[in-house]
Amino acid sequence: MRDIIRNINKKIDKVRISRLIDELSAIGQDTSGGITRIAFSDEDLDARKKVKDILENELGLDVRVDQAANIIARRKGHDPSAPVIMSGSHLDTVKNGGKFDGVVGIVASIEAIRVMNQLGLETRHPVEIIIFTSEELNRFRFSTIGSRSMAGKLNKAEFLKLNDDNGMSFKEALRKIGGDIDNIEKAIREPTEILAYLELHIEQSVNLYDKKIPVGIVKGVTGIYRMFINIHGEANHSGTTPMHMRKDALVAASDIILAVNEFTKDEKNFQSTGTVGMIKANPNVVNIIPGEVEIVIEFRSFYIESINRLVDKIKKKIAEAGIKRDVNIDFNEVFDLKPVPFSKEIIETTKYVCNELQIEYLELISMAGHDANHMAEITKTGMIFIPSKEGLSHCPEEYSEIDDIALGGTVLSGTILKLDEEY
Amino acid sequence: MRDIIRNINKKIDKVRISRLIDELSAIGQDTSGGITRIAFSDEDLDARKKVKDILENELGLDVRVDQAANIIARRKGHDPSAPVIMSGSHLDTVKNGGKFDGVVGIVASIEAIRVMNQLGLETRHPVEIIIFTSEELNRFRFSTIGSRSMAGKLNKAEFLKLNDDNGMSFKEALRKIGGDIDNIEKAIREPTEILAYLELHIEQSVNLYDKKIPVGIVKGVTGIYRMFINIHGEANHSGTTPMHMRKDALVAASDIILAVNEFTKDEKNFQSTGTVGMIKANPNVVNIIPGEVEIVIEFRSFYIESINRLVDKIKKKIAEAGIKRDVNIDFNEVFDLKPVPFSKEIIETTKYVCNELQIEYLELISMAGHDANHMAEITKTGMIFIPSKEGLSHCPEEYSEIDDIALGGTVLSGTILKLDEEY
Repeated sequence: MRDIIRNINKKIDKVRISRLIDELSAIGQDTSGGITRIAFSDEDLDARKKVKDILENELGLDVRVDQAANIIARRKGHDPSAPVIMSGSHLDTVKNGGKFDGVVGIVASIEAIRVMNQLGLETRHPVEIIIFTSEELNRFRFSTIGSRSMAGKLNKAEFLKLNDDNGMSFKEALRKIGGDIDNIEKAIREPTEILAYLELHIEQSVNLYDKKIPVGIVKGVTGIYRMFINIHGEANHSGTTPMHMRKDALVAASDIILAVNEFTKDEKNFQSTGTVGMIKANPNVVNIIPGEVEIVIEFRSFYIESINRLVDKIKKKIAEAGIKRDVNIDFNEVFDLKPVPFSKEIIETTKYVCNELQIEYLELISMAGHDANHMAEITKTGMIFIPSKEGLSHCPEEYSEIDDIALGGTVLSGTILKLDEEY
Repeated sequence: MRDIIRNINKKIDKVRISRLIDELSAIGQDTSGGITRIAFSDEDLDARKKVKDILENELGLDVRVDQAANIIARRKGHDPSAPVIMSGSHLDTVKNGGKFDGVVGIVASIEAIRVMNQLGLETRHPVEIIIFTSEELNRFRFSTIGSRSMAGKLNKAEFLKLNDDNGMSFKEALRKIGGDIDNIEKAIREPTEILAYLELHIEQSVNLYDKKIPVGIVKGVTGIYRMFINIHGEANHSGTTPMHMRKDALVAASDIILAVNEFTKDEKNFQSTGTVGMIKANPNVVNIIPGEVEIVIEFRSFYIESINRLVDKIKKKIAEAGIKRDVNIDFNEVFDLKPVPFSKEIIETTKYVCNELQIEYLELISMAGHDANHMAEITKTGMIFIPSKEGLSHCPEEYSEIDDIALGGTVLSGTILKLDEEY
């Protein structure tokens, strides 16, 4: 295995990788130098066509598009009963996004198959490259459509009702790129037919970049907790209402916002984040004390005990602020996403590959959600991160070094082959 | 003079006052029990017609409408060369406002003339009742149109350009109620032709109501300082940006909002107020750290040294917050309104009247602007406040006792007559 991995490392072709990234970057390039390749758009369709063509004609894979419009390209294994090893990511971007988020995972998967073909490496398990549909938040206000469907978690009735702001239905949008909402359940994959799902992705944070470590082995994905808070004070004239008689909802909101920041900083060892991203005040005019303020708190952590501690502390703070500022505060809690621990077997396998390559790696946590979240519900799942310059993502400045992408591709290929050997 | 004042007190007729308030309240009554008699509306026009009819036909005054659509009703004095004593207020309301703001000043002025007529009291100076056009913030985003015009402070070129949201021009709106923007300068009154301007108004705060004192003698109107602040942080992903790397504009805004509240409470002895009424965050979504936040600070105080102290302290706080939160903060300052001290002569005259009536009074400051602000620039000006229940105003719950309105009317009448005698 060591020799195979080192051979792959020699064969991985940075020029090919670089060229494909450039070709994909040409699709959806916007005027500010970013990439706008929103799911279901013409640009998305163009990129999908291009990649499908490579999978079919260059790599010689069996390519099909499932009912969720996921592109699935299969390389046969020599044991017809063996479950599949999947490697995937996405082609869609946010508005004015970057060239690397999503794309690196697909380009690395393609390069892995190219090299396996070149080296004549056959596997017992079939290997599939998956291009997931609409990983980013789309214009129907949902993300991870493809993986959600594959895991059997897309609510058909709900999605049949969705329309975008221009009145286009989700059904129509999905059909445009080859999907079929009416038969979406046929996109579900059974756990028994899958051995593993792997995804290479840019880190979107600074851990690898700052430490100059080329590979991140992802232990799992953060949990996301959100609290939707409504503060009810009293809208009164800013001049005629003395300070001691005020019920200022914005002052109470400020107490809470500062507490979120302070409490979360105390959870440094757990890498938790706490953010108030959204605030709305009413009536929101200069000479009226804000009577109503709405804020949303978000806590993220891979460590559920850290989130629980933050939630307990902030609930106490909310009660205090209510009394101190003479306002009523109510809230709804949504535990959007429980932390998702990734497969220990895959983590160990990827570590083995890194060790054989004699490269440094960092075990870390993904603080953003991915298709891997849904895939983890139906199969052993793992992610490989590569450094993002300054941690930037979802912007034109997003950048990863070609050396890191290539090395990540080697680790991905090695992990596929080691899993094939081991299980 | 003591006997005259006491006679007036006996003659002031609460039933007449009450009836006229009820009749005016019927014009513009909205479904939630409030009054919506916005300037330039049909309801405004109806109320103006009703009052004009009383002034002309019941009180027998010479009534004219000036180019700013101010209604000016004149009771002759016996010295044709003597300057006029004015008593006025306004009929327009905010949306869903109350029955008393503005109206009490007009009803009290009418009752004063009625009683003077009944008692056969002639004056050396002419006396004018003024119904000012559009005191409240109107749909052209301006207030105090009538008094502003009378003081020669309405910028004709600017107002000729104004349109409301329905495309109606200010010119047309003003013409609808009898004004003429093209000749607005003819509405200017010369300082030499006016002896004094008096206005009775509800307090819109709790000083009189809490202390159960029936009359407030207003020392002047608060200054209003506004600071428009833009905080420039960095919009980043809420999950992938560690706490120590954030440039969170909303956290910095919260530092400032709490400081405004705290610093202003320290100025209790100066009755200053400090408010952040307006906040806008960008991009304002739950999973992005706010990159840009806009807030507006407003400080009000009659004591300019208190405003200056607050401004100094908040500027230091802004500099601190900029460093602590790693954001850039810039701001514009607008000293909207300098504090307006009212005429000492009128204050003394009104005190004299209260003493003759053996009633308690409180010297206080108006924390809201009035037509009196503009009139103070061209003549000796004074205001008489009566209690507002719980300090409420600009809402359906606005309430003043008829006894307080009547007593305020007596003090107003007495002040007119004493000024007439004295000057």
